[in-house]
Amino acid sequence: MLARTCLALALCLALPAMAEEAKKTPTPKELLAKSSPDEWRTPDPANLVYMDLPQGRVVIELAQDWTPQHAANIRTLIREHYFDGTQVIRVQDNFVTQWGDADGDDKAKAKSLGSAKETLPPEFTRKGGKYAFTRLPDGDVYAPEVGFSDAFPVARDPKAGEAWIAHCYGTVGVARDVGAETGNGSSLYAIIGQAPRNLDRNLAVAGKVLKGMEFLSAYPRGGEPMGFYDKPEQRVTIKSVRLAADVPAAERTPLQVLRTDSKTFAAVVEAKRNRKDDFYTRPAGKIDLCNISVPVRDPSKKP
Amino acid sequence: MLARTCLALALCLALPAMAEEAKKTPTPKELLAKSSPDEWRTPDPANLVYMDLPQGRVVIELAQDWTPQHAANIRTLIREHYFDGTQVIRVQDNFVTQWGDADGDDKAKAKSLGSAKETLPPEFTRKGGKYAFTRLPDGDVYAPEVGFSDAFPVARDPKAGEAWIAHCYGTVGVARDVGAETGNGSSLYAIIGQAPRNLDRNLAVAGKVLKGMEFLSAYPRGGEPMGFYDKPEQRVTIKSVRLAADVPAAERTPLQVLRTDSKTFAAVVEAKRNRKDDFYTRPAGKIDLCNISVPVRDPSKKP
Repeated sequence: MLARTCLALALCLALPAMAEEAKKTPTPKELLAKSSPDEWRTPDPANLVYMDLPQGRVVIELAQDWTPQHAANIRTLIREHYFDGTQVIRVQDNFVTQWGDADGDDKAKAKSLGSAKETLPPEFTRKGGKYAFTRLPDGDVYAPEVGFSDAFPVARDPKAGEAWIAHCYGTVGVARDVGAETGNGSSLYAIIGQAPRNLDRNLAVAGKVLKGMEFLSAYPRGGEPMGFYDKPEQRVTIKSVRLAADVPAAERTPLQVLRTDSKTFAAVVEAKRNRKDDFYTRPAGKIDLCNISVPVRDPSKKP
Repeated sequence: MLARTCLALALCLALPAMAEEAKKTPTPKELLAKSSPDEWRTPDPANLVYMDLPQGRVVIELAQDWTPQHAANIRTLIREHYFDGTQVIRVQDNFVTQWGDADGDDKAKAKSLGSAKETLPPEFTRKGGKYAFTRLPDGDVYAPEVGFSDAFPVARDPKAGEAWIAHCYGTVGVARDVGAETGNGSSLYAIIGQAPRNLDRNLAVAGKVLKGMEFLSAYPRGGEPMGFYDKPEQRVTIKSVRLAADVPAAERTPLQVLRTDSKTFAAVVEAKRNRKDDFYTRPAGKIDLCNISVPVRDPSKKP
């Protein structure tokens, strides 16, 4: 009957098979095992955020080159311990998990932003400038071109000279009020469902979760409209938010990200586009931007 | 500062605003309030599955017209109480939640399928035949055409004369082993993340979750490869799975689905494609198949 190790899907491919091995699409694991050390990037610890939750650590890479003023404000908030003790205040199914000060809308109770700014220029898109871009071949419903820039899924409109980080699964955005300049990074959200690409160009993207999405995605959904928790005790309290740069070396999370301009990344994308093996008999032949997870590894472990 | 009722996103639009009301995109709530009763469909109770979990009820509509042999086998399994006491055995982040017999791969321990069939013709796609189809205007990365057929997100290739239900958030598929005919409906999965459209045409789609996705999506992710639970106590036990047709009227979940060939559905899609208001200043102008949730309502409640 149904083999438990292979009940459905992707990793069936990892099972050894004696025949026709050459015709089968290699698995990401096989491809990564053959990667060279220089295909991996160690993120700058000044751009790496550790959010320690009761369930474990979430590691976020800030989009320093895309939203520099937001990155700077978030660093200020982190270094002044703004986020320590704040909470997961909202989980809306198939949309976002949001964290920050539960009393942020109550002037009398709201936590001080300290020396961080209360408003910021929107930084919703990036105009001009140089940035790495590995374009994907299959187009996109929403934008003229899509691809990757370092770990970030990027969409762009060459005619308009604009580029922006797309709201894919794991993208971290800056919550705001109605006004475009009302976001300051003191409340952030992570995408936990189908990419809501209609948010693109309407919100600033602060970064991307590199590790720990499984904690942010599995909290109970909130009962109020938009997924806000109706009972304060449902909110999960954040133990601390720190920059990796401020954490003693022994407490850091060893982490490397596959370079998206590497041959191995191209091979991983191609293997997913055209996976064909005993299980997948009809390759998709295509891949959507938000269906690609950029591989992350612990360099202290053997490949 | 950040208004809690409006910290980020979609439902900000629901806030009343005095000026420029006419220029603003109506919200889904506003559009649905103006719908007519005949725009709503009451699913056939013979195609409606109630899966009662400790957290609440999941309602699934079987894709009778798309995978009829799977629907028939699942009905047999349900009516012989196969699923009662089976478990959620796997939750893989950004992919699937899967349920069935945890001992399904152990012939000595596996639950009997009773009079249900152990293998079935694949039914991965539908060739020819008539079906309703409301086409979407913005194309698709994976298929030549996409749209809706009743509640189901459908992709199709007119040249090949083939159509299939797409693996969007909430799609329920039939887990199988390597062989294409090894799926029988005794283990099912629901998509809980970014639509893995590479599964399309490689697996049979049994139906779609109409209500209760927030239970299936929020279980802790499993620690074994592919998200299988490494500890048996992590598995959630399913209280019962029944067909609505077999449930006394008083215990049924009142539920109607917006017809996807209705004017109101078209208006809801268009409002999401081109949302423009105080919050969304740059409408996407496009929409992806899997970004559309078909509205469901409780007809016993006032709109």
